[in-house]
Amino acid sequence: WGNKMARPKTYRVKKGKHYPIKRRSAPGAAPGTLIADPEAHELEARVITYSGETFEEVVDAGIEKIREIRFKSDQVLWLDIVGLRDVAFIQQIGELFGLHRLALEDVINLHQRPKVEEYNDYFFVTARTLLAQKGNETEQVSFFLGKNFLVSFQEKKGDCFEPLRKRLREGKGLIRETKEDHLLYALLDAIIDNYFPALERIGEELEVCEDAVITNPEPSVTQRLHSLKRNLLTLRRAIWPQREMLNALIRDDSPLIRPQTHIYLRDCYDHVIQLMDMIETYREIASGLLDIYLSSISNRMNEIMKVLTIIATIFIPLSFITGLYGMNFNYSASHWNMPELNWRYGYPFALMLMIFTAVGLLYYFKRKGWLGGLFDKKDQPKE
Amino acid sequence: WGNKMARPKTYRVKKGKHYPIKRRSAPGAAPGTLIADPEAHELEARVITYSGETFEEVVDAGIEKIREIRFKSDQVLWLDIVGLRDVAFIQQIGELFGLHRLALEDVINLHQRPKVEEYNDYFFVTARTLLAQKGNETEQVSFFLGKNFLVSFQEKKGDCFEPLRKRLREGKGLIRETKEDHLLYALLDAIIDNYFPALERIGEELEVCEDAVITNPEPSVTQRLHSLKRNLLTLRRAIWPQREMLNALIRDDSPLIRPQTHIYLRDCYDHVIQLMDMIETYREIASGLLDIYLSSISNRMNEIMKVLTIIATIFIPLSFITGLYGMNFNYSASHWNMPELNWRYGYPFALMLMIFTAVGLLYYFKRKGWLGGLFDKKDQPKE
Amino acid sequence: WGNKMARPKTYRVKKGKHYPIKRRSAPGAAPGTLIADPEAHELEARVITYSGETFEEVVDAGIEKIREIRFKSDQVLWLDIVGLRDVAFIQQIGELFGLHRLALEDVINLHQRPKVEEYNDYFFVTARTLLAQKGNETEQVSFFLGKNFLVSFQEKKGDCFEPLRKRLREGKGLIRETKEDHLLYALLDAIIDNYFPALERIGEELEVCEDAVITNPEPSVTQRLHSLKRNLLTLRRAIWPQREMLNALIRDDSPLIRPQTHIYLRDCYDHVIQLMDMIETYREIASGLLDIYLSSISNRMNEIMKVLTIIATIFIPLSFITGLYGMNFNYSASHWNMPELNWRYGYPFALMLMIFTAVGLLYYFKRKGWLGGLFDKKDQPKE
Amino acid sequence: WGNKMARPKTYRVKKGKHYPIKRRSAPGAAPGTLIADPEAHELEARVITYSGETFEEVVDAGIEKIREIRFKSDQVLWLDIVGLRDVAFIQQIGELFGLHRLALEDVINLHQRPKVEEYNDYFFVTARTLLAQKGNETEQVSFFLGKNFLVSFQEKKGDCFEPLRKRLREGKGLIRETKEDHLLYALLDAIIDNYFPALERIGEELEVCEDAVITNPEPSVTQRLHSLKRNLLTLRRAIWPQREMLNALIRDDSPLIRPQTHIYLRDCYDHVIQLMDMIETYREIASGLLDIYLSSISNRMNEIMKVLTIIATIFIPLSFITGLYGMNFNYSASHWNMPELNWRYGYPFALMLMIFTAVGLLYYFKRKGWLGGLFDKKDQPKE
Amino acid sequence: WGNKMARPKTYRVKKGKHYPIKRRSAPGAAPGTLIADPEAHELEARVITYSGETFEEVVDAGIEKIREIRFKSDQVLWLDIVGLRDVAFIQQIGELFGLHRLALEDVINLHQRPKVEEYNDYFFVTARTLLAQKGNETEQVSFFLGKNFLVSFQEKKGDCFEPLRKRLREGKGLIRETKEDHLLYALLDAIIDNYFPALERIGEELEVCEDAVITNPEPSVTQRLHSLKRNLLTLRRAIWPQREMLNALIRDDSPLIRPQTHIYLRDCYDHVIQLMDMIETYREIASGLLDIYLSSISNRMNEIMKVLTIIATIFIPLSFITGLYGMNFNYSASHWNMPELNWRYGYPFALMLMIFTAVGLLYYFKRKGWLGGLFDKKDQPKE
Repeated sequence: WGNKMARPKTYRVKKGKHYPIKRRSAPGAAPGTLIADPEAHELEARVITYSGETFEEVVDAGIEKIREIRFKSDQVLWLDIVGLRDVAFIQQIGELFGLHRLALEDVINLHQRPKVEEYNDYFFVTARTLLAQKGNETEQVSFFLGKNFLVSFQEKKGDCFEPLRKRLREGKGLIRETKEDHLLYALLDAIIDNYFPALERIGEELEVCEDAVITNPEPSVTQRLHSLKRNLLTLRRAIWPQREMLNALIRDDSPLIRPQTHIYLRDCYDHVIQLMDMIETYREIASGLLDIYLSSISNRMNEIMKVLTIIATIFIPLSFITGLYGMNFNYSASHWNMPELNWRYGYPFALMLMIFTAVGLLYYFKRKGWLGGLFDKKDQPKE
Repeated sequence: WGNKMARPKTYRVKKGKHYPIKRRSAPGAAPGTLIADPEAHELEARVITYSGETFEEVVDAGIEKIREIRFKSDQVLWLDIVGLRDVAFIQQIGELFGLHRLALEDVINLHQRPKVEEYNDYFFVTARTLLAQKGNETEQVSFFLGKNFLVSFQEKKGDCFEPLRKRLREGKGLIRETKEDHLLYALLDAIIDNYFPALERIGEELEVCEDAVITNPEPSVTQRLHSLKRNLLTLRRAIWPQREMLNALIRDDSPLIRPQTHIYLRDCYDHVIQLMDMIETYREIASGLLDIYLSSISNRMNEIMKVLTIIATIFIPLSFITGLYGMNFNYSASHWNMPELNWRYGYPFALMLMIFTAVGLLYYFKRKGWLGGLFDKKDQPKE
Repeated sequence: WGNKMARPKTYRVKKGKHYPIKRRSAPGAAPGTLIADPEAHELEARVITYSGETFEEVVDAGIEKIREIRFKSDQVLWLDIVGLRDVAFIQQIGELFGLHRLALEDVINLHQRPKVEEYNDYFFVTARTLLAQKGNETEQVSFFLGKNFLVSFQEKKGDCFEPLRKRLREGKGLIRETKEDHLLYALLDAIIDNYFPALERIGEELEVCEDAVITNPEPSVTQRLHSLKRNLLTLRRAIWPQREMLNALIRDDSPLIRPQTHIYLRDCYDHVIQLMDMIETYREIASGLLDIYLSSISNRMNEIMKVLTIIATIFIPLSFITGLYGMNFNYSASHWNMPELNWRYGYPFALMLMIFTAVGLLYYFKRKGWLGGLFDKKDQPKE
Repeated sequence: WGNKMARPKTYRVKKGKHYPIKRRSAPGAAPGTLIADPEAHELEARVITYSGETFEEVVDAGIEKIREIRFKSDQVLWLDIVGLRDVAFIQQIGELFGLHRLALEDVINLHQRPKVEEYNDYFFVTARTLLAQKGNETEQVSFFLGKNFLVSFQEKKGDCFEPLRKRLREGKGLIRETKEDHLLYALLDAIIDNYFPALERIGEELEVCEDAVITNPEPSVTQRLHSLKRNLLTLRRAIWPQREMLNALIRDDSPLIRPQTHIYLRDCYDHVIQLMDMIETYREIASGLLDIYLSSISNRMNEIMKVLTIIATIFIPLSFITGLYGMNFNYSASHWNMPELNWRYGYPFALMLMIFTAVGLLYYFKRKGWLGGLFDKKDQPKE
Repeated sequence: WGNKMARPKTYRVKKGKHYPIKRRSAPGAAPGTLIADPEAHELEARVITYSGETFEEVVDAGIEKIREIRFKSDQVLWLDIVGLRDVAFIQQIGELFGLHRLALEDVINLHQRPKVEEYNDYFFVTARTLLAQKGNETEQVSFFLGKNFLVSFQEKKGDCFEPLRKRLREGKGLIRETKEDHLLYALLDAIIDNYFPALERIGEELEVCEDAVITNPEPSVTQRLHSLKRNLLTLRRAIWPQREMLNALIRDDSPLIRPQTHIYLRDCYDHVIQLMDMIETYREIASGLLDIYLSSISNRMNEIMKVLTIIATIFIPLSFITGLYGMNFNYSASHWNMPELNWRYGYPFALMLMIFTAVGLLYYFKRKGWLGGLFDKKDQPKE
């Protein structure tokens, strides 16, 4: 009953973390109302433009700068916005690129389900990415894919797109030769691939739990497994709709997504299927482990009960015999009273009686098959 | 075994509340028979007409007044009826707007499943709204959407449409520029969004239960979780068919619903999906918590059993020894009888025998791994 | 452990009732063989003909009479047959109306699944109706809907069609204006609506069980819940295929079912959906109650164990002490033997030892949190 | 704890019976390799030819005889082969009728899933029939339906087709008027209808189990229910794919199956649906019974625990008191030592103390509600 | 409690074996990046070319040799690559046959889900084969099927294709007459058929477990069943997507797969369905066995509890009586004090009191039905 494991440290609930839904706009408000979340991060806009040879990156771009770039080039323009506090700025972006107010509202109202919405001349895509540094927390990433531009919105700094930006800057691979639809693919692919390490971590924890369940079933394992199951639930909730989202992009025949990009999106879709596969497998294993844990507990209890029963049921009759000959009936008052006490072999007779009783009971238990394993060291398997 | 939590106050069943079905018309009655529910509320009709610039509101309108407005304007007419007692009035409304008797019967027979029915020149839509002031009680709201008019029926006063009426009166936003289909959307959107606070409340209760399950598993938690699960069941029953209902509206290509409204309805549909998502997640979490509670209970019982076993199995042999030397065999009758009692070190010998027995058993238990955690304070995790 | 509830009276199994399948024709018999069930009821044919103004009803009509009416009028003819013993008569009816032998075999072989079969110029419909007077027993009703005629077959007398016949006789409502397809709808609607009271009854029983589970968990509750679950299973088996059956009628575009009847059938279909909804909800609630019952039982056992443990573990060491000083070592033989017995304060010392032991154990249990609720009156929630 | 039921005799596993898969051809062998199962039965070919008036039956036909008949008549030819040992013969049949090697391989490799395969000018159909004489054992029956011929293969003698052969011989009914497609239907119908008695038997066993679970829950019931569940599983595995198989035949528009046969196949399909319905219902009932059994067991244990607790907790304090006054402190050494023993009413005082203790504990238990049902005869419901 | 079975040796988890996902390319890497797994095996390329008469086999072919053969013949070319370490070589193969980089990446990134991808002029197929020599370990096999060529990639040496190669070399059967699509079928068929022996092995283990559960329920059975269930899960994960993969190949109408091959693929598809069927059945049986095991355990515990209860509750009152008459109240001080001790028949009276108490309790237990089975040898069924 090791004390070390009995105190799970990392699995306590942080209020408001696991059950997150906060719609900013009150029920009944006009649709498309943009209200900033007071806890939202500072907005920071970064503009990247590139074509085969050229590459330009403007960090912390203002709306004027963006407008200027927007109407100048027929290069690919990636407007990368991090932090959603400055609602006015977002509205200006919306006007500049001709984005629908409802879509902008969804950008700000976090906890959207990943989805694709097709508007007249652009796509609105929401995805959910894992925050690399922390456990299983996710953030919403929204994309507007239009002709020659891609606008992305993230909640906070720190994302999984840095390797991609580096590839763009360095012109490595064919990435600069491709257009904005391939950029969208590359971003989505980075988001999806980022889930693999998290799942590998869960897989390793499951193995630890499996070991614990079989060799040393502790009450804390239940909480660990519960926590793993909830993490898997959270991941499933984040990943599952991305499957549909990618499927919608693949099936779409709009000119915004070029045919050669479909192969790439399909590859990305395969990764999502693989993730879902793993999640389902892990969920089944976790449920199975819970069952095994419960049966281990009841085995252990069984064992404890058995020891109690055997010791108690052997000694209870013996104690009765000692009690019997401890009675104080007065032999001198009548020779009917406890003559055994004055027998020559009274005491040896009583001892023999006890020994016979004990042996008889042991034989009874043996016949019932209740003595096996009684003298094993710890009720756990050894190799 | 804290008494505070052991008495759940708010979760007792009120008869006839959780299992509500009452069809007014008897089996075998003619279809389309309108029979008032004697418990229905007083009817109150409010007419709102508006176009871009104009706005008129008539509270407590009579049938004559309504007929007059009906055939006068090509503005949008919203007839908002609260209370379903006056069946004759409802029938007159039906004739005035050309509504089918079967649909009117559904308006009065509450507990309809949310649905859309398309008639020749109007839609019949039933939804289910949460009564804001009370727990998880819902009421039925029916809509008839025709050319230039929308008729809505509610069970009682007090709804979630007031912010919308205010926006109409004040002409805020673009709402007055839109037509009756957008009005229907706005009403449905208000109904849907009204479920979010209720679900947030349930999420918070789940967190409380989670804490309780892990730190202090009380029998009352089962009832709380059961109650939460039933609330979720009720909400799911109310929300799930609204998904289909909205989907039917979106997929419809009747001219009654204009193309630009489809985007808004799709947004509303997304919210319903989000609600369903949350409900399913909460249901899974609640089930998981029940499992953990049960395993906590069996852990606790295990612990109790262990203490009993250890104390009992140590003292039972010791008591046997004391009983043995408490027997009254007569040493003077025969020297075979309990010579130990007259040994010089008889008593110390007996004491040593007991000590050896106790130590041996303790060693046996330790080897079995049954002594861990015996001296922890309360069998609960600390941080 | 109240005796009142412990003996469920109404839920015992009557052999052969819950698992009914009896195919009359032996495996390998020629298809379409009509073999009367010896337990079938006496056949009684009633012919009703009507058009807008006219209405005629012939009770106990013979085959000649039926043939005569059949070829005379272009009114709606409803041939209503109750009791299936007279197979020859049924065969003659089949020839008269041109009905397929396989369909007639299905009429006689009860326990058909509700279904629609379309033949060249008629529909064959089987439904399942609840016998009003008895619990959840159902009977099969078969319909042949052809041009200008409707033939219905029931197992026994006593049905839910009487209100409809009355409406036909009295010419109330629009029923006489309609044709045979509307008559079929009206009959099906009566069948469906007849299930609502049965489900309301089950809902009320569920509430009683819920109360019992929370305030006074008795073993008999399990059997009641099991019985409710099986009743729900039976109802679901009867109702579920009627959903498909109605759907098939609605989707059909045969001229036998007029467009205006589709609206009515759709209404009837909605009622079936509502029934299914309720059944599923009740099933989930019943399962949830079983879980709660089991956890109540294990809570109660826990409580009992706790009391045993506490009393036993406190008194076992005390009894050991009394046993110790009840030993008969001979002080006169050696002063090593139980000098305590001759101490001046030996007895008070022993009493103090016991009191300290008891207090120490109580403190240990309190620290473990095992003393709470020990002095509550009955382990049940109060309000 | 009746000994009679505790030893289930008929439900032990016979190795290799419940988990049967034996593919004759080794992995990697050329497809279409025919390898005889050494345990296969002797082959026996029977040829039946018929048209409206004529009927001829050749028992034990050789390949020459078959070839002669094959190319002679345009009557319906039914080649009925029982026993699959003579692989060469089967190959010759295959060449004679132009059958694909892969299909012939499936005929010999038993444990195929029932299915339909359409080849250019014939159908290959596999079904699974219940061996009438034995429990739930099934055998594979394969059919080749071509123009004017039907070839059927069975594993062993003894089938459910005898009534059909008799009908053919006697020319009863319309069977001789029909063609080979109707013959196929008739054979499939016989196969399907043969399952009904088996399911009725299971239904009866379920009722017995239900009685046992409620009145006398024995450990053996678990094994009976497990065995029933596995039988249902086996039947479901055999029947379920036959649903698809029949559906495929119905939906097919090949000229090999005439339109008038579709009605008959649909009837057969309905029977399969009915079988599946019953199987699912039985499975749910069996699961429910298992749950009830488990809760009965835990109720019984509860009851046993209660009795132990009550007797033990009443007598433990009493025994402590007797032990107390059984101590041997020497009153003559000091008057502090056990003065009670010399009181005038010492013994009556001790007795009263015990009685008060016992009554107090009984009151405590009564208040806790633990005394109910203690004096009922056997913890089972009476009527 | 047999020691033999209590230590499962073969079912311990080997870390990183059961939860395998390792994507070689880091998240954010350019798609199509080929990075060799340092643990990959040495690459070995074998080229087989054949047509009806000719057959040539080049073991350990270099890239030059392959190029030469590639452009020379219009025979069928099978390039069979084992070991994936030499990424440069794989890239050259890719260029030579015109294969897409994403597909090549999937070849190297193991743990792909089996799938078919159609490219312009070739198919990319991934399958998963069981490693014959070891338990349930699987490896990925990838195929590129183009006009006149088939390229296959395996992880390690040792496969199930050897019988096929032999058939090719010896020109047995029709295999040399067929084209590359039939070769693909033959390889896939070998892969699928290889799963049958593994499943048969699991079936046999299930039977052993079933025996153990019924005759001798050991804690180790849980772990065996858990291990079987996980193996079934692994197999299902490997086999299930191959169903879709084959289905995609069958439904495809590309000229790369000839019509006559469809029949063969359909046969292969049937085998997969059969495998899935067996897996599902085994999973259900394994779950059922777990339930039975748990109920056996609780039966056994019940039995143990019963024995404890009966012995304890019989002897506790008896011991109380002996204690009573072991008290030392001083009869000489007052004749109220324990006069029984000086009665003439005091001792026989006490003995009779005990016997009556014991008999009364035994009668009580018998009436409760708790004595049955107490004297059976081991609580297990005999035949």
